[in-house]
Amino acid sequence: MSAHEDDVRARSTWSALAEPGDVVAGTLVETMGASDALQWVRGAAERLSESQWRELEDRCGALTPAVRARIARAVVRWAGRLGDADPVRSLDLLERLGGVLLVPSDPRWPDGLSSLGVESPFCLWVRGSTDLRAVLLRSVSIVGSRASTTYGERVAFDLAEGLTRRDVCVVSGGAYGIDAAAHRGAVARDGATLVVLAGGVDRAYPAGNAGLLEAVVSAGGALVSEVPPQSLPTKSRFLQRNRLIAASSLTTVVVEAAWRSGAMSTAHHAARLLRPVGAVPGPVTSAASAGCHRLLREGVAVCVTDVDEVSELAGLSGAGITGAELAADAGARRPTDHLDPVARLVLDALPRRTGSEVARVASAAGVSGAEASAALGLLELDGWVVRRGNRWLLARMSE
Amino acid sequence: MSAHEDDVRARSTWSALAEPGDVVAGTLVETMGASDALQWVRGAAERLSESQWRELEDRCGALTPAVRARIARAVVRWAGRLGDADPVRSLDLLERLGGVLLVPSDPRWPDGLSSLGVESPFCLWVRGSTDLRAVLLRSVSIVGSRASTTYGERVAFDLAEGLTRRDVCVVSGGAYGIDAAAHRGAVARDGATLVVLAGGVDRAYPAGNAGLLEAVVSAGGALVSEVPPQSLPTKSRFLQRNRLIAASSLTTVVVEAAWRSGAMSTAHHAARLLRPVGAVPGPVTSAASAGCHRLLREGVAVCVTDVDEVSELAGLSGAGITGAELAADAGARRPTDHLDPVARLVLDALPRRTGSEVARVASAAGVSGAEASAALGLLELDGWVVRRGNRWLLARMSE
Repeated sequence: MSAHEDDVRARSTWSALAEPGDVVAGTLVETMGASDALQWVRGAAERLSESQWRELEDRCGALTPAVRARIARAVVRWAGRLGDADPVRSLDLLERLGGVLLVPSDPRWPDGLSSLGVESPFCLWVRGSTDLRAVLLRSVSIVGSRASTTYGERVAFDLAEGLTRRDVCVVSGGAYGIDAAAHRGAVARDGATLVVLAGGVDRAYPAGNAGLLEAVVSAGGALVSEVPPQSLPTKSRFLQRNRLIAASSLTTVVVEAAWRSGAMSTAHHAARLLRPVGAVPGPVTSAASAGCHRLLREGVAVCVTDVDEVSELAGLSGAGITGAELAADAGARRPTDHLDPVARLVLDALPRRTGSEVARVASAAGVSGAEASAALGLLELDGWVVRRGNRWLLARMSE
Repeated sequence: MSAHEDDVRARSTWSALAEPGDVVAGTLVETMGASDALQWVRGAAERLSESQWRELEDRCGALTPAVRARIARAVVRWAGRLGDADPVRSLDLLERLGGVLLVPSDPRWPDGLSSLGVESPFCLWVRGSTDLRAVLLRSVSIVGSRASTTYGERVAFDLAEGLTRRDVCVVSGGAYGIDAAAHRGAVARDGATLVVLAGGVDRAYPAGNAGLLEAVVSAGGALVSEVPPQSLPTKSRFLQRNRLIAASSLTTVVVEAAWRSGAMSTAHHAARLLRPVGAVPGPVTSAASAGCHRLLREGVAVCVTDVDEVSELAGLSGAGITGAELAADAGARRPTDHLDPVARLVLDALPRRTGSEVARVASAAGVSGAEASAALGLLELDGWVVRRGNRWLLARMSE
């Protein structure tokens, strides 16, 4: 067996022994390498002797009694699963589904996960598109409530569709509600979308989204999990799954979320990883938006309302300019604020439809005739007014 | 005529000569006093001689040619109105409406306006409740779009009603849409609400809100303006009116606003005065909320969603605790986040309805039997689980 095969085998075993986010396991694997760490655990599981501790300390440095106790408890946890862990069978299962196992040394391993440090997954069980690194270079997580509203689902779908058109991979958790709407928006544009599952990639969870998950794979997207096929999606795995969603994408956008919810945990994971976080506002009368508003109030998230703002948040260049942006720009570019006060008074005093002569404009504006003349001349140069004989008229305006 | 009467007369004249926010007039009045400044203008209006400039420089210090030119232009503007300004008639008109004129030396003058400096109004023409200082000690401006939605009007009404119940004066501009909804919310609770008008207090503007404006006065509120009765509400007066709304209240809350709108100008006035600004979010699909979201994105405003959050923004103590706040607190106080990881795994592994024995819980959670026992004991103390013979059950939970 090559060193690489050995690493793959050991990491797939670790993903069956340790719960996602187990920092004791993560530290051992990082310090000793997956294979050596596994070998050490196999010995320790039989008997955690003083020579075992010495072997560990040779690799990790001195361990305090508290750390030793923590490791010993972890060994007991892992030992209980050593008998059941069967990486060969799991890898066979994955292969039959057309999947691959990615490990950190694989060039297809996504860059973003490295920021998780010792909480990094040991490996990723992947179905569908396998070059996650390439796919996730331009990626945005869209997460939210399962108890979503039509409004939230519409926004999630539209954001995902718009991002997909800009060649951005939408990442989410495959749950009902906002997650599903986001994946659907991407699939509607035949885009690659990433579903990060809490259980095994052979399990469609929730079952009602089985068709959607298959459509994700068909459209060139992928299902990924850090636990082996056949693993159950438990509550703690859902919570840990959220850190993967946050870490794999450039930014996380919460569309709808209750005051306390999984999406809020994903947002906080992203914030801890120093990734920008976006929150889509909604009606204050909607409990489904309460979490988003909380993120805005607490300064965890930036307010985002459309694809442009999400792209900007993610730092993605090459974003096209939408009609909304153009309209907003135009609105911002035609300000009477920039006029000097006299010009504003004059412009204000000019009858909209009929126009007026200088003397009457001056009197209505409360300025001198000379001031009105000068102001009208400048306003004409700027395209605000036009002259028709003695009369001054407003240029066509859409105020 | 007493010095006070003289000041009142002069200031009411100034309010007819100079447009709101005229900083040249404001500076002269601040430097020379309203009466002396007016006397100087009367002379200068006939002929702006070198002796006039010397008189001014004796009071104000040396004037550069550019400043002289600016003052000269202003004198021309004011001079055109000197003939029409009739403070005695305006004060008579006000008196017949039961109103009073407030000047800055009046103990009823609102504190907040002093932050406007030379842009302070010369006087306030007031109908209704006259002790503005007392009324505005606890005050919140609620402003927004005339082109409001049912959602926005509902939120404005509810916020105003809730603030009124907490003895907070709601300030707004009396316009259609959000302004009117805010005043209505206050009147519905028989609360004092302040309408800051762009035209004279004898003019119901807009006419469709005439009944509402009368109801405001009947309910103990007030209509105020910095221009004399019979003055027209011009566009520049509307914009200047917004600075009064911002300056008179502790905080300004924008409920709905288009990308560019008067409410946005009020928000920016408040921000410039270093008053906290709140914005109520809404659906991103609603153009009526675009301005609010812009204020949030640009960090001008804080996201506010209910009366508690507005009260907090205004720094108003003595705010009651609402049901929503209690519920949110309860939500925040029952987090499994505070449990240690083993306890969380154990809690997670416990079958919801049937409960389980220690050994099975340990195996399902991937922890040792001793760890599961210890964790269950602690969870029992915290009220998370209960013991029934050999079985452990989840305590009644509302997850």
